[in-house]
Amino acid sequence: MNKLDAGAKGVYLIAVTPFAEDGSLDLHSTDRMVDFYLDHGANGITILGIMGEAEKLTAAEARLFTKRVLTRVNGRVPVVVGASSPGFAPMRELTMSVMEMGASGVMVAPALSVRTDEQILAYFDMVNEILGPDIPWVLQDHPVSTGVKISNDVLIEVLKRSPSCVMLKHEDCPGLGKLSAIRAASARGDIARVSILTGNGGGLFLPEELIRAADGAMTGFAYPEMMVGVCAAHAAGDIEHAYDIFDAYLPLARYEQQPGIGLAVRKHIIAERGAIASPTVRRPGPKLSAADIADIDRLTKRLAKRLISFGLDQG
Amino acid sequence: MNKLDAGAKGVYLIAVTPFAEDGSLDLHSTDRMVDFYLDHGANGITILGIMGEAEKLTAAEARLFTKRVLTRVNGRVPVVVGASSPGFAPMRELTMSVMEMGASGVMVAPALSVRTDEQILAYFDMVNEILGPDIPWVLQDHPVSTGVKISNDVLIEVLKRSPSCVMLKHEDCPGLGKLSAIRAASARGDIARVSILTGNGGGLFLPEELIRAADGAMTGFAYPEMMVGVCAAHAAGDIEHAYDIFDAYLPLARYEQQPGIGLAVRKHIIAERGAIASPTVRRPGPKLSAADIADIDRLTKRLAKRLISFGLDQG
Amino acid sequence: MNKLDAGAKGVYLIAVTPFAEDGSLDLHSTDRMVDFYLDHGANGITILGIMGEAEKLTAAEARLFTKRVLTRVNGRVPVVVGASSPGFAPMRELTMSVMEMGASGVMVAPALSVRTDEQILAYFDMVNEILGPDIPWVLQDHPVSTGVKISNDVLIEVLKRSPSCVMLKHEDCPGLGKLSAIRAASARGDIARVSILTGNGGGLFLPEELIRAADGAMTGFAYPEMMVGVCAAHAAGDIEHAYDIFDAYLPLARYEQQPGIGLAVRKHIIAERGAIASPTVRRPGPKLSAADIADIDRLTKRLAKRLISFGLDQG
Amino acid sequence: MNKLDAGAKGVYLIAVTPFAEDGSLDLHSTDRMVDFYLDHGANGITILGIMGEAEKLTAAEARLFTKRVLTRVNGRVPVVVGASSPGFAPMRELTMSVMEMGASGVMVAPALSVRTDEQILAYFDMVNEILGPDIPWVLQDHPVSTGVKISNDVLIEVLKRSPSCVMLKHEDCPGLGKLSAIRAASARGDIARVSILTGNGGGLFLPEELIRAADGAMTGFAYPEMMVGVCAAHAAGDIEHAYDIFDAYLPLARYEQQPGIGLAVRKHIIAERGAIASPTVRRPGPKLSAADIADIDRLTKRLAKRLISFGLDQG
Repeated sequence: MNKLDAGAKGVYLIAVTPFAEDGSLDLHSTDRMVDFYLDHGANGITILGIMGEAEKLTAAEARLFTKRVLTRVNGRVPVVVGASSPGFAPMRELTMSVMEMGASGVMVAPALSVRTDEQILAYFDMVNEILGPDIPWVLQDHPVSTGVKISNDVLIEVLKRSPSCVMLKHEDCPGLGKLSAIRAASARGDIARVSILTGNGGGLFLPEELIRAADGAMTGFAYPEMMVGVCAAHAAGDIEHAYDIFDAYLPLARYEQQPGIGLAVRKHIIAERGAIASPTVRRPGPKLSAADIADIDRLTKRLAKRLISFGLDQG
Repeated sequence: MNKLDAGAKGVYLIAVTPFAEDGSLDLHSTDRMVDFYLDHGANGITILGIMGEAEKLTAAEARLFTKRVLTRVNGRVPVVVGASSPGFAPMRELTMSVMEMGASGVMVAPALSVRTDEQILAYFDMVNEILGPDIPWVLQDHPVSTGVKISNDVLIEVLKRSPSCVMLKHEDCPGLGKLSAIRAASARGDIARVSILTGNGGGLFLPEELIRAADGAMTGFAYPEMMVGVCAAHAAGDIEHAYDIFDAYLPLARYEQQPGIGLAVRKHIIAERGAIASPTVRRPGPKLSAADIADIDRLTKRLAKRLISFGLDQG
Repeated sequence: MNKLDAGAKGVYLIAVTPFAEDGSLDLHSTDRMVDFYLDHGANGITILGIMGEAEKLTAAEARLFTKRVLTRVNGRVPVVVGASSPGFAPMRELTMSVMEMGASGVMVAPALSVRTDEQILAYFDMVNEILGPDIPWVLQDHPVSTGVKISNDVLIEVLKRSPSCVMLKHEDCPGLGKLSAIRAASARGDIARVSILTGNGGGLFLPEELIRAADGAMTGFAYPEMMVGVCAAHAAGDIEHAYDIFDAYLPLARYEQQPGIGLAVRKHIIAERGAIASPTVRRPGPKLSAADIADIDRLTKRLAKRLISFGLDQG
Repeated sequence: MNKLDAGAKGVYLIAVTPFAEDGSLDLHSTDRMVDFYLDHGANGITILGIMGEAEKLTAAEARLFTKRVLTRVNGRVPVVVGASSPGFAPMRELTMSVMEMGASGVMVAPALSVRTDEQILAYFDMVNEILGPDIPWVLQDHPVSTGVKISNDVLIEVLKRSPSCVMLKHEDCPGLGKLSAIRAASARGDIARVSILTGNGGGLFLPEELIRAADGAMTGFAYPEMMVGVCAAHAAGDIEHAYDIFDAYLPLARYEQQPGIGLAVRKHIIAERGAIASPTVRRPGPKLSAADIADIDRLTKRLAKRLISFGLDQG
């Protein structure tokens, strides 16, 4: 029950994985984090993605964490689980295991070895065969991490061949043209309409993506209320208000998007906001310097002021 | 005369190369562009960089364009010329040629083939040997385009061995820690203080970079007044005002930073502002769609309003 | 017991993982393959490497396969298990699990994200911390698959800091100079002497590597008797005879080294030789065409003739 | 006159660029090298390729060297000039200049920035437009140096759209299947038959490539008589003899194919054979160690003996 479908919209949070200071999995913070996301209006949660440090977890930890998130969410919103893997056997094993636990779908990015259009098509044909017709899956299009560049036409062809791919996690950049192309293909009737949630740069292009008919965001910026607010304003037809909200958070969102230390920034803020006990990033991973933290503090204070001066403060 | 030195500060514009709609070099617009940059307070100009489409020019065109810029600038500010090359013979040939024409220095990024620390040090040893002791040069540290990741310690060692390297164009990302490390090395007396101008993401981290003791920016965002204003406010000790200016332009600066189409966005805005006749990017290069242009128009209008509401409008 | 140590020498076979035609793990062939390697004179066996399709196995399959190999080997030779992983927690989990089953050591290559010398040193410091002082490990230096280029000096420094790293799997290319540099460092007393087994191009440089004081080969060419014979001739001081053997097999070894389809060629030959039931490569993986198989047949026949004409035939 | 056409066959030598010990262009050796190649039966010469250190030459040097080669060849065989460039303007400039000097055609590899099938097709459409209908060109398909992986279908489509592309320099690896696919496309009448010369690994797969209907080799192995002999034996229908010749040279050809130092090995041998005065590789470039040279000496002596024992010695 609660399976993901092509009508999904709004904000799916890319969840972090909370660790204690000694690097052990922090299950108590896992509960708090789920509450934090849901309290801020998340329409779904995605776990075990790149920003969830999935590859640093043992198989047992991944199962434990998934179970805990699913239990806490308790069916209130869909939970998507990252299942990308260099091999199809482990992808299938993980998928079957999390679907049985109650996940709503899995997310798959192409393997690093895939290069040509022909290989991309063959790869996703195999994904369809491996996952079967009954498991809804999300195609993650993120060339920066996979090295796989999928052209508009090929992406449309993949969607055409993938009836159980119900959602695109759109994070190719530049990607606005691709968004328009996919929506045009649906409008022409070439493919069924899928849900498109965007993750580009942690939401750095969200207003423009919504204008191009994205259905929402799937990203993990430490202020979920930004994405929730922007999506709501857009849904209400007030594009300028959507931008007002977006612009207020942008200086901080930008800072969080630094490659390499972004996750440390995100966890620092989430911990400061009380959602997790420790900002620990599991090794190998970055640490923030005092100067980094001073930057974040300044940006956080400026954000607070700006929200008040714009009447955007919801406290 | 007018040679670049380690005291350089402020804003060095990364100049575009103007083309007519048919793709030919537009020398008349070259003059207008120089005027535009200088009128907006540029402290220097850098030509034939990546954003200058240097590799799309014939050798004759590169010479012609350089000559035109130097003539128009006429010694008012330093002009730096990109001289990166896979081979040392062409690097030397270009350098000698532009220095004779009156350039103030050249900019060099490591070749793609360089990988280990040992290779990086050997590479810049050869650069020093090739350029000799009398030509000031800028080290461009831009891993995204070169694939060469220079650690803090290695960068400091390169600077130590390179007495005529007077400036670092800092665009590693994350790069704030590296900035702090280099300044600390100077403070300890390990290396002479060099000028550091930052180019990260077209200036997307400028306020934080100035806080870490950068001397200014070397980037090409279509609104030079942003960088000029931020640097001036910072120099005046008003960090919050520096951020106010920065924040106003950030939504547009962010849009201009999309990889792949960023240069087309930049040229579109510069052309709209009257600095060049045509936004043409030479092939192979991107074109903006109507939807892209609508995005830019909306962001430009929001910028104008915001400048007024913040009292930042200088018109 | 039977722990790997720095005195290891001779030929360690990189084992394939046998699959039935339907892609399922073939445990019966696993036994035959172990026998085949040992009958041909293997001094050790390495499993779950790149050529072992490790990342296509589920965790349960990897355990099952490891158990089967260890049971069949039954302590006659050391068994090394590949334990490279993007995260340290899964690396530790797998290591502890296989050491408990009776493995002789694990093999570790640096993660893809590692770039600078500083990062390389930090990475292996963490490996040492994670594995602890009691588990012997093999450093796999294979830039083609990892993207990590380790300079001679850095490799020597890693070895110096890693008392339980008892072996280098040497497959940097060109790598002869690196081999000489490491042996020189031991000779100077800078580092303890480690075992160096070479894997470059499936043994394509074995005679030269032995001349540079490698201790043997760790590779998986379908004719283990080539490596065994070359090592024996070299140990007997007959370099020309070592080359005679090598040269006879070279046309086939070269054919097996084609990137992308090499593993399919290897499994085809091993299956033809009766060591495994099916040449199946698990998906995603290559298949041989009829023309490829005709090539292999021709090369195999030429090999047989040549062995006879050179008096190298051992049948 | 002497324009390259689709009937080209045999051996086109990838020429080195001779430098004196001080790194200056050695024009006298250029003459000797041309004589050496032609005396050994070359059917054509290709200059300014990767192994010709093209990117280390100044524009003036490239012109001077081209002129010298063309003068010495004096129309006896076709001369192909490498014209790959990140920009179309310099590609056109160089092409026009060398065609005017008397080159028979140019060779073009795709730019590094090209990724998807769509981009590959667009890229070569532009090449066709830039070069026009009258200049014969060679498509260099070398993913290792360009990073551009062209699938069989896309390569066939490029050839279909490129009437003046008369030759494929085939160096994708594994590439035998691609060779078969292109010949099948010609046989079906989908595309005109082009000349296919192979360069894979410096000729390391030449016998198999000829079996798949390649027309010859375009590579620079220091013993052109190997490729000439193999092609002649194959043309005479004696595949086993072709292999006999190939096998004799293979240990040395393999040694010359080490990435990174291969060119230094090649120049060393060519210099030893008297074709050029110095083995100097222009900086940045590798140097051979005494141990490397001892390896080459041993392999050269073994080659000489083997040629005699097989009756292949032509001296």
